Amino acid sequence: MSLPSLRLKANADRRLRAGHLWVYSNEIDVAASPLAGFAAGDQAILEAAGGKPLGIVALSPNNLICARLMSRDTKHVLDKSLLVHRIKVALSLRERLFDKPFYRLVFGDSDLLPGLVVDRFGDILVAQLASATMERYKDDVLAALVQVLKPSGILWKNDSAARDAEGLERYVSVAHGEVPEWVGLEENGVKFEAPVMEGQKTGWFYDHRMNRARLAPYVKGKRVLDLFSYIGGWGVQAAAFGASEVMCVDASAFALDGVQRNAALNGLTDQVISVEGDVFEALKELKAAEERFDVVVADPPAFIKRKKDFKNGEAAYRRLNEQAMRLLNKDGILVSASCSMHLPEDDLQNVLLGSARHLDRHMQLLERGAQGPDHPVHPAIAETRYIKSLICRLLPSA
Amino acid sequence: MSLPSLRLKANADRRLRAGHLWVYSNEIDVAASPLAGFAAGDQAILEAAGGKPLGIVALSPNNLICARLMSRDTKHVLDKSLLVHRIKVALSLRERLFDKPFYRLVFGDSDLLPGLVVDRFGDILVAQLASATMERYKDDVLAALVQVLKPSGILWKNDSAARDAEGLERYVSVAHGEVPEWVGLEENGVKFEAPVMEGQKTGWFYDHRMNRARLAPYVKGKRVLDLFSYIGGWGVQAAAFGASEVMCVDASAFALDGVQRNAALNGLTDQVISVEGDVFEALKELKAAEERFDVVVADPPAFIKRKKDFKNGEAAYRRLNEQAMRLLNKDGILVSASCSMHLPEDDLQNVLLGSARHLDRHMQLLERGAQGPDHPVHPAIAETRYIKSLICRLLPSA
Repeated sequence: MSLPSLRLKANADRRLRAGHLWVYSNEIDVAASPLAGFAAGDQAILEAAGGKPLGIVALSPNNLICARLMSRDTKHVLDKSLLVHRIKVALSLRERLFDKPFYRLVFGDSDLLPGLVVDRFGDILVAQLASATMERYKDDVLAALVQVLKPSGILWKNDSAARDAEGLERYVSVAHGEVPEWVGLEENGVKFEAPVMEGQKTGWFYDHRMNRARLAPYVKGKRVLDLFSYIGGWGVQAAAFGASEVMCVDASAFALDGVQRNAALNGLTDQVISVEGDVFEALKELKAAEERFDVVVADPPAFIKRKKDFKNGEAAYRRLNEQAMRLLNKDGILVSASCSMHLPEDDLQNVLLGSARHLDRHMQLLERGAQGPDHPVHPAIAETRYIKSLICRLLPSA
Repeated sequence: MSLPSLRLKANADRRLRAGHLWVYSNEIDVAASPLAGFAAGDQAILEAAGGKPLGIVALSPNNLICARLMSRDTKHVLDKSLLVHRIKVALSLRERLFDKPFYRLVFGDSDLLPGLVVDRFGDILVAQLASATMERYKDDVLAALVQVLKPSGILWKNDSAARDAEGLERYVSVAHGEVPEWVGLEENGVKFEAPVMEGQKTGWFYDHRMNRARLAPYVKGKRVLDLFSYIGGWGVQAAAFGASEVMCVDASAFALDGVQRNAALNGLTDQVISVEGDVFEALKELKAAEERFDVVVADPPAFIKRKKDFKNGEAAYRRLNEQAMRLLNKDGILVSASCSMHLPEDDLQNVLLGSARHLDRHMQLLERGAQGPDHPVHPAIAETRYIKSLICRLLPSA
């Protein structure tokens, strides 16, 4: 197989040599290798300005990220065989980490499969194709997943915003076998069902697994508030770990049906209350009613989706966390999470410190949690590191 | 009790209002309140430049950090009653977190007890007084610890370098009851004995508890190398979690006796080998002998003790981790820890990425661990956050 060349400008190889996998369109020597000569999903040999081959890239010529390094070895093109190999390497890590088959099986760039995300729910796989390249190799991805995992069903959950930048349409469809609307999983010993077709993202957020596990010592016998509860990932686990009462707040009636479904699955219906409504409104009402909690979990959707949202987004984190703190008892625990890649952990910590000082409370930062190891971070790609979960103790002022 | 005033210069109150507890000598309005008028351990009412009281401070007039805020309420001076209260607040957190009485009970500034560290080993307490104030209130500290915990023994392990800056001599002495040379503890279900009199710091490093717990999924049936093993905190736990073989390397014969003692305590003598020698030399010899490991733990003493050591210290981290990586099997795990407060986690990550690229290996950062919750971080005091533990998977290059 003879591949065309994609030539970089001078010094544009430096970031790639340092470990990164992405090539930006302004880094291409378009005189030597015009991007217009490539179709989405085409592969090429990436060359430094001097002509030295750096590896195989797959192209998205109309995207700002116009190519992604698939291999540093020019012998390894993207094909079914490479997909099978990479999926096996990804699987071997997860099998080492987890007793049961519920995890993120493939996490894009970090597993050297840019544009591909696969969550595993036992025999059911939910896959997301986020690049034109992966969309074009869809049949090979499917065949590779079937070969390695022999699942009873695979769902394409191809409705993410990332597809727009690649000029891809959004759709959800069953790719293989049968996929029920709700699929079972287990996390930290607690049973759940996730709505893989209608839910957020793949239906479940495995990324907070370890952070949810850390609820255990803080919630026993306590009253817990779970803000932006979705289908109860935090709240139902808090109840399973012994919370005396958990109030889950979410704007979506569909999500709250999921909360009750999951509470029932674990025999925890009596402990888990659902409140439908805007979280910020609910916080005000709870304050007005003088409700107090021992533990508040605030795990909102990303308030900072793009870098330019930073200021407004940070203000939203501040408002949310400060209002959450106001509902805490004298010796209370706030679990403050963020999935905004653009909000560094230190900024979140400063937001919390500022709120604590504003309310004249002494704050101890007890634990700093990150995404679980089935979401490995690619150390050269900051975008792969996004989950924060800070466990704070709020005491009366010194 | 009428206290003198300590007056700040204009705007010097800002950092304290934002949450910090330390006052630097160049922030004092020495015309209004000469530092020479205070003896070490004296208390005063700290005032902003305009005269507004900010709280009670205790002084170390000859230190660069000349005063520490003890309370933001001018009614609460440092005395036995305040010590009892603060120790109880600290204890209530640890009792919530841990089933067994083995933990850092008091962590200085973060527990609003600047200058005091107490580690608990069941009925034995090992305490460190790091400020002239705490040294002066030694009898009250002792009485408060006895009142709250009724221990069978308390040891003053007052031999830290921090005492030099406070003009305090170094000593180790039994303060109360009886203290054996080796005291028992349990961590993550594994039994240990720690040499509280002759060992490093308080004899044990509770700070890495949660990071050591995370060894479990990675070491089962694997060959493990533990560098700078001290008395086997990582290595013996790795063996207890099912490692087939653990090699502990340390320059201290005394520490390695501790390794064997702790291996024997858990019936793991067959699995744990001790190698005495300089770690960097040992790494070279292991490489020359073509030894390979599935997991390497590198938890060195702080290579960066002062800010000005940064460059040399970072180079030492680079050398250590790169040599450790060279000993890893094809799909290997490196646990890279640092207790250098001056080495940010991102810098350590970059050191590891650089080494991985240099050796042409693909690195996945699986877990980012921090100090356990019995070492709470004071969010306004960067010095209270110091432990890093990065779990990385090293694969062949893409």
